[in-house]
Amino acid sequence: MTKEQPSMGNTTPSHDVTVIGLGAMGGELARVLVAAGKKVIVWNRSPDKAESLAKAGADVALTPAEAIAASPITLFCVWDYSAANEILAQDGVGEAVAGKVIAQLSNGSAEEATHQANWLEQRDAEFLGGGIMGYPRAVGAPDTIILYSGDPDVFKAHAAVLRILAPAQQHVGNLSGDAATVYTAVWGFYFAAMGGLFDGLALIAACGLSRESVKAMVAPMAGKFVEGALDVFARLDSDNFTGDQATVAGHIEGIEATCAGIRKKGVEPRMLDAFVAQLRVATVAGRGDEDVAAVAESLMPASMLPSHSGY
Amino acid sequence: MTKEQPSMGNTTPSHDVTVIGLGAMGGELARVLVAAGKKVIVWNRSPDKAESLAKAGADVALTPAEAIAASPITLFCVWDYSAANEILAQDGVGEAVAGKVIAQLSNGSAEEATHQANWLEQRDAEFLGGGIMGYPRAVGAPDTIILYSGDPDVFKAHAAVLRILAPAQQHVGNLSGDAATVYTAVWGFYFAAMGGLFDGLALIAACGLSRESVKAMVAPMAGKFVEGALDVFARLDSDNFTGDQATVAGHIEGIEATCAGIRKKGVEPRMLDAFVAQLRVATVAGRGDEDVAAVAESLMPASMLPSHSGY
Repeated sequence: MTKEQPSMGNTTPSHDVTVIGLGAMGGELARVLVAAGKKVIVWNRSPDKAESLAKAGADVALTPAEAIAASPITLFCVWDYSAANEILAQDGVGEAVAGKVIAQLSNGSAEEATHQANWLEQRDAEFLGGGIMGYPRAVGAPDTIILYSGDPDVFKAHAAVLRILAPAQQHVGNLSGDAATVYTAVWGFYFAAMGGLFDGLALIAACGLSRESVKAMVAPMAGKFVEGALDVFARLDSDNFTGDQATVAGHIEGIEATCAGIRKKGVEPRMLDAFVAQLRVATVAGRGDEDVAAVAESLMPASMLPSHSGY
Repeated sequence: MTKEQPSMGNTTPSHDVTVIGLGAMGGELARVLVAAGKKVIVWNRSPDKAESLAKAGADVALTPAEAIAASPITLFCVWDYSAANEILAQDGVGEAVAGKVIAQLSNGSAEEATHQANWLEQRDAEFLGGGIMGYPRAVGAPDTIILYSGDPDVFKAHAAVLRILAPAQQHVGNLSGDAATVYTAVWGFYFAAMGGLFDGLALIAACGLSRESVKAMVAPMAGKFVEGALDVFARLDSDNFTGDQATVAGHIEGIEATCAGIRKKGVEPRMLDAFVAQLRVATVAGRGDEDVAAVAESLMPASMLPSHSGY
């Protein structure tokens, strides 16, 4: 099925890069690499998804072992670590990974990344944890970020080919799981913002208003969020939570009244309810009169709080 | 207590603008107006808060009726509509408002705004509903937005003095309550994003990682949010919810696994839990295979759904 025979073992690789998993995201990764002139070899559990890639110029391996053996670096982009681990357990893969780099872009936790990295290390393979900060449409765009973690020298050695996918890629930590942790934290505020927008659009519809005025506010408020978020970081860094702008308690009072108004319109304000629940954690910790940034500290597990905060 | 006698009744106003309520926000409004050279008269329930304004050059009225009578437009910036209504009920206020404009910048719902506007209309006064899209530090900054609604001619007549406070001010609707509704919807995604950041920072701390890598991602992800949000508006406008990028069901599966990983670290993922609850509403509505934008429609009260959506 391959157009030419990929090399096996430690001979010179026949391809530049391997892509395992050809879903919406993995398929796009492979397409962008092919379009950039790389020699790409792919494998997918169901072979039909490989057809359009083959037409685009990728070679299609019959087995994951064959695909991994064919190039120095393999991008995994399957649903999650369970799916990735199943593929790694297939015939010959444990041998094929020797001397290779696995860049794992599937969904998973820091623990799962660490576990897989250990498995690979035992087989003389290197692991890079990765998190793609965008939907498939973003792959290859100038501002696209993929977060990586793991051995920085391994990252540097393969940075050029990886940069094709995400010109704004970042190495965020030396541990295998660091990329997964940062990925989770960062998508967390993206999804929360999206959820807040959904609640807001439901309210606008319930009130019979045009959503155009909300649309016009998306970019300005995203800018305000950046400003507010950087203020939170500055307050955490300087341990300054004086409530001169707006206190935790003030936020609770205002937002609870707002939530009551939203409910009257038949909309469930799920995201604002959850935000109030966070604010209450800070209140219980005795920080109701402090700036809302104090909430970030109140949510940290007790053992992680800076010793100088006095809580 | 006033430096000069303000005019009462329908004679020429002695001042340019009145500010009622001198908390963190109201005080800042008055200060910025004074600094811009306007003749400002203020009133606050507890007179001590007026002292610094008096030093800055504002006149201080003894009663709200005196303050309101002294200028063509009064900005109310007290805690909420209950507090504002109490002030409007004070001696002589019902008479002082005749022929005046009340710009209500206090927290409240569209219903409360409508109720107050009706009360004012009965007394020959005009009402502008307002919502300040920022913390006190933002007042007067070039990109600051205050949303207004109500009679567009009234807004236009006073736009120049109001623009001092928020150069990027916007008139978002002709009904008294429209500004409150848009304000609620827009702050909703700001607060949700902030809550998501707080959860993320708690996770980062729980994992013993530096928050610098999250800080570096704030601006890029806010940009991604703008892009994602505009995609939601485009999909709503065109009724196109094909799940070619990432489906509702896919989001649920990925985010639930993520939430489990966050819990293992001792952090409660309140905002992501609430987002998953939203996604489940779309699933129950049979839209699990559609783009995540379908969630916005699923959260709208049933009677508000576009008839062509087929649900």
